[in-house]
Amino acid sequence: MAQLRVVRAPRGNQLTCKSWQTEAAYRMIQNNLDPEVAERPQDLVVYGGRGQAARNWEAFEAILECLRELENDETLLVQSGKPVAIFKTHPDAPRVLIANSNLVPHWATQKHFDELVAKGLMMFGQMTAGSWIYIGTQGILQGTYETLAAVARKRGWPSLKGKFVLTAGLGGMGGAQPLAITMNEGVGLIVEVDPARARRRLEIGYVDEVVNDLEEAMVRVEECLDKGIPRSIGLIANAADIYPELVIRGITPDVVTDQTPAHDVLMYIPSGLSVEEAAVLRTTDPAEYEHRAMASMARHVQAMLEFQRRGAEVFDYGNNLRQRAYDAGVKDAFNFPGFVPAYIRPLFCEGKGPFRWVALSGDPEDIYRTDEAIMELFPEDEHLHRWLRMAREKVPFQGLPARICWLGYGERAKAGLKFNEMVAQGILKAPIVIGRDHLDAGSVASPNRETEGMRDGSDAISDWPILNALVNTAAGATWVAFHHGGGVGIGFSQHAGMVVVADGTPEAARRLERVLTADPGMGIVRHADAGYPEAIAAARRHGLRIPMLKETP
Amino acid sequence: MAQLRVVRAPRGNQLTCKSWQTEAAYRMIQNNLDPEVAERPQDLVVYGGRGQAARNWEAFEAILECLRELENDETLLVQSGKPVAIFKTHPDAPRVLIANSNLVPHWATQKHFDELVAKGLMMFGQMTAGSWIYIGTQGILQGTYETLAAVARKRGWPSLKGKFVLTAGLGGMGGAQPLAITMNEGVGLIVEVDPARARRRLEIGYVDEVVNDLEEAMVRVEECLDKGIPRSIGLIANAADIYPELVIRGITPDVVTDQTPAHDVLMYIPSGLSVEEAAVLRTTDPAEYEHRAMASMARHVQAMLEFQRRGAEVFDYGNNLRQRAYDAGVKDAFNFPGFVPAYIRPLFCEGKGPFRWVALSGDPEDIYRTDEAIMELFPEDEHLHRWLRMAREKVPFQGLPARICWLGYGERAKAGLKFNEMVAQGILKAPIVIGRDHLDAGSVASPNRETEGMRDGSDAISDWPILNALVNTAAGATWVAFHHGGGVGIGFSQHAGMVVVADGTPEAARRLERVLTADPGMGIVRHADAGYPEAIAAARRHGLRIPMLKETP
Ligand SMILES: NC(=O)c1ccc[n+]([C@@H]2O[C@H](COP(=O)([O-])OP(=O)(O)OC[C@H]3O[C@@H](n4cnc5c(N)ncnc54)[C@H](O)[C@@H]3O)[C@@H](O)[C@H]2O)c1
Ligand SMILES: NC(=O)c1ccc[n+]([C@@H]2O[C@H](COP(=O)([O-])OP(=O)(O)OC[C@H]3O[C@@H](n4cnc5c(N)ncnc54)[C@H](O)[C@@H]3O)[C@@H](O)[C@H]2O)c1
Repeated sequence: MAQLRVVRAPRGNQLTCKSWQTEAAYRMIQNNLDPEVAERPQDLVVYGGRGQAARNWEAFEAILECLRELENDETLLVQSGKPVAIFKTHPDAPRVLIANSNLVPHWATQKHFDELVAKGLMMFGQMTAGSWIYIGTQGILQGTYETLAAVARKRGWPSLKGKFVLTAGLGGMGGAQPLAITMNEGVGLIVEVDPARARRRLEIGYVDEVVNDLEEAMVRVEECLDKGIPRSIGLIANAADIYPELVIRGITPDVVTDQTPAHDVLMYIPSGLSVEEAAVLRTTDPAEYEHRAMASMARHVQAMLEFQRRGAEVFDYGNNLRQRAYDAGVKDAFNFPGFVPAYIRPLFCEGKGPFRWVALSGDPEDIYRTDEAIMELFPEDEHLHRWLRMAREKVPFQGLPARICWLGYGERAKAGLKFNEMVAQGILKAPIVIGRDHLDAGSVASPNRETEGMRDGSDAISDWPILNALVNTAAGATWVAFHHGGGVGIGFSQHAGMVVVADGTPEAARRLERVLTADPGMGIVRHADAGYPEAIAAARRHGLRIPMLKETP
Repeated sequence: MAQLRVVRAPRGNQLTCKSWQTEAAYRMIQNNLDPEVAERPQDLVVYGGRGQAARNWEAFEAILECLRELENDETLLVQSGKPVAIFKTHPDAPRVLIANSNLVPHWATQKHFDELVAKGLMMFGQMTAGSWIYIGTQGILQGTYETLAAVARKRGWPSLKGKFVLTAGLGGMGGAQPLAITMNEGVGLIVEVDPARARRRLEIGYVDEVVNDLEEAMVRVEECLDKGIPRSIGLIANAADIYPELVIRGITPDVVTDQTPAHDVLMYIPSGLSVEEAAVLRTTDPAEYEHRAMASMARHVQAMLEFQRRGAEVFDYGNNLRQRAYDAGVKDAFNFPGFVPAYIRPLFCEGKGPFRWVALSGDPEDIYRTDEAIMELFPEDEHLHRWLRMAREKVPFQGLPARICWLGYGERAKAGLKFNEMVAQGILKAPIVIGRDHLDAGSVASPNRETEGMRDGSDAISDWPILNALVNTAAGATWVAFHHGGGVGIGFSQHAGMVVVADGTPEAARRLERVLTADPGMGIVRHADAGYPEAIAAARRHGLRIPMLKETP
């Protein structure tokens, strides 16, 4: 039974396919389904609830077969995880073109999508699941690390050293917070209501210690702050109790955020209930549950607003907590910002985003060498160096060894060319695959998150990700994908992915330079067009060609 | 004032830009705004209500400037009619990439779109307006000619010779019907309530004669049928009276359709009212108007259903007439089919669609030579020959001389290569631009029209047009566009356009072969995937590479 097969990408420098371009796709789709990488490989689900690598096992096998046979002037077309055609193109064209989960807007509902999935006509591609460049949880950790680093930068702090970060939630994504805080040298107090969740994070070394008592927690926090030691402390308690209690005690953290599951009212544990009690109430009286959860979220946000008034850096981490509090009567809930407009967008304005790469050799040494190369390329970037050091120490590889770090316009092309050189010189044992998340500067339209509150109101304009997919295709990416619904669900986003292979040839060098220039370049262009002064300055600094660029928008 | 300038494409074989690739785009965007071509050139509106060529005059001038400067390894990006960036690509990449009117689905409403247009952030691109390959009304005439030819083919008739076609409406699009009927050698009776509209069509030679009386009209019809003479007769009357009257008289036409404006209830003239009386009632008592119009449309459709029962070929021409009658109580209104599933889709299954080309020289002789070349390439295709002969005789050029005819998979590449050869040999005075409407076999998702009622229910899946835009980019089209909302309005369609230039070089020949193979190939692939036996057979016959193609879907 194909369903029971365990998938793992081939390693080493022997080709199964006819070139490293196709070999890269061949290994990466399999790597996405490696049990170390995928959430539910038996269902072809890579991550993000139902983000799949292929429509079904038959389609998966057919894709592999196509890739094994594909010539260097041919292109495979994949429609929602199913290979549908091979056409003759040319060597500088992508080897694979992917369109996942796209629906004509009027019909772009979860319901219609689910019907089409049930008929076997579509699949949900999420972002890097259906475009074959997921690298495991390192991405979430790095994103959180970048966000917290941007918080420090905004405040003019060299890092979070000596700073107290208060947050909550040690779940699937929130669990990256303690490690991201200590990687930024800060002291974190993370409130988690579920002891089991906290314990798991302690076991894998993401959180340094777990306590049951606020008193005890604050003693440890103060100690570490005094000594300037990075430390993360998990506190088993409810955020809706602890945040207000700290307000009463007159304690003001330097940074306050939260990753409780406020996006789902029935998942947020109301004050006064244990996890087990909450589970009971959720089924016996959901209306009462909702009522209590909303009241708790209101108190939770009121405390955050008070921290903000007292000078703390407070932000929403994309879980809809402000909206809940607002609906529960906290009319100034939106006084603190969401994390994208506050910290990520300034990075996007520089073309900075999630640059990631994978060693096709399967040898961790290859990644360590690229880590060193990046440090040499950007010797001044202390923040980057810290991440790379900590990542090597703390982040176990999942599947093929991989690395992620945020690089900007210019830097990405530089790094890509360097890797290609290292492959050519035999410093690396096999080619390197370079890609990124779809959540990047110029590749996504997602008005509830990445393009929320754009300066000119252009949040919903998706000409931008389409141009991104087209220009990456024109520039010679190895594969290009265009998806709908990633991150925020069917109807709510459109986004493009790209992957380009450094196989050590001069042709690859030319493609890398073009793709890794145009792709982040789109980020600067998109934000300059929206009137962000940082982007306009970046465009001028880098000499980007934006025909109608205005000095003052 | 730029707004008052009259735009006309340069002619001749002198370059203003740096290559014929960019020169082609340069001339075609200007040709779209030629007063002979555009509906409202002063507003940059080409056709289709508000389909624009550029966002505003400033953007238009900036596009021209970019095209004049663009090198052969650079690509210009256009976002909803505004040039936003130039990136380095390579000679085989498109010179221009265009995304028009695209919105994230949840926000894809006319209202939000209009707000963004008002803010100067978007424009409506229709199909060939914003992608610079509109050629005037020849396209509508040819589409109608093809539809009627397909009707004959379906019935097993060599043409409409000796056949009686009953239809109604001589408006903007419907006015092409009489000429399309006679081009197919049939006898047409076209019922039009507005004498002024009928007169205009008589003046430009689209309709052969106009009469006021059914008696007189039927005498002429019978005469011409007897003699086998092609003839079109306009009858000033209301279709809601004439269709039922013919039923009563026991007269059954061979073909029955209709192009009254049933899509807009307040535009369909109710029985018993003159155009002037209707105009009054429309403003004084719209509810009463609507009531009467609905009743008239019900009678209109009841007569069509009776013609069908008596053996006539009856179809809806995409004006929503069946829905109106259904809403007015005619429960079997949908017993006769829409024109796309009935006649156009079988063509799409063969990769057949609207192939068009333009002579950049501006010399009509160039088009006549290509006409001859097409006739020589396809000597057996009598239907095609008839169209080309009649087109030359009856269709005045608008702007740069252009031609359209429907060609299938294989034929398009053959024609493109032939034109390129003719340019190389100096038979033509300048290069030829080859393009098509977005309404083609593999380039559109539009569930209310082109992809209505797909065999597998995949009407709304827009992975297909996205793959079409990507593969045309990969194959080396000269420009590629991706639009939203064309034909049926914001929210209701997504579609891709492509243009490729035959400049006589061997590189162009390779690009032409790739693009003109992959592009119609997508049509076969899309329909084979949906399970159409004709498409599966075409795929096998042409040796298309469809990895998971099943014999029986
Ligand atoms: N890119 C982004 O915008 C982004 C990034 C990260 C997280 N998020 C959001 O953050 C939220 C958390 O994501 P996750 O995957 O970690 O969710 P999850 O459900 O896996 O974990 C939530 C955790 O919060 C705990 N919790 C629930 N109620 C609590 C309370 N009142 N006090 C303290 N702890 C409580 C739960 O026990 C659980 O461990 C989601 O809403 C997610 O959408 C968004
Ligand atoms: N691709 C397609 O699906 C397609 C192609 C062609 C036309 N159409 C549809 O056909 C319809 C006509 O298009 P148009 O651009 O010609 O519209 P139009 O408004 O320009 O012309 C409609 C004509 O019908 C006449 N008319 C109105 N009521 C009448 C009646 N009761 N009896 C006789 N004549 C009457 C009007 O006087 C007018 O001349 C539209 O609904 C259009 O959407 C669709």
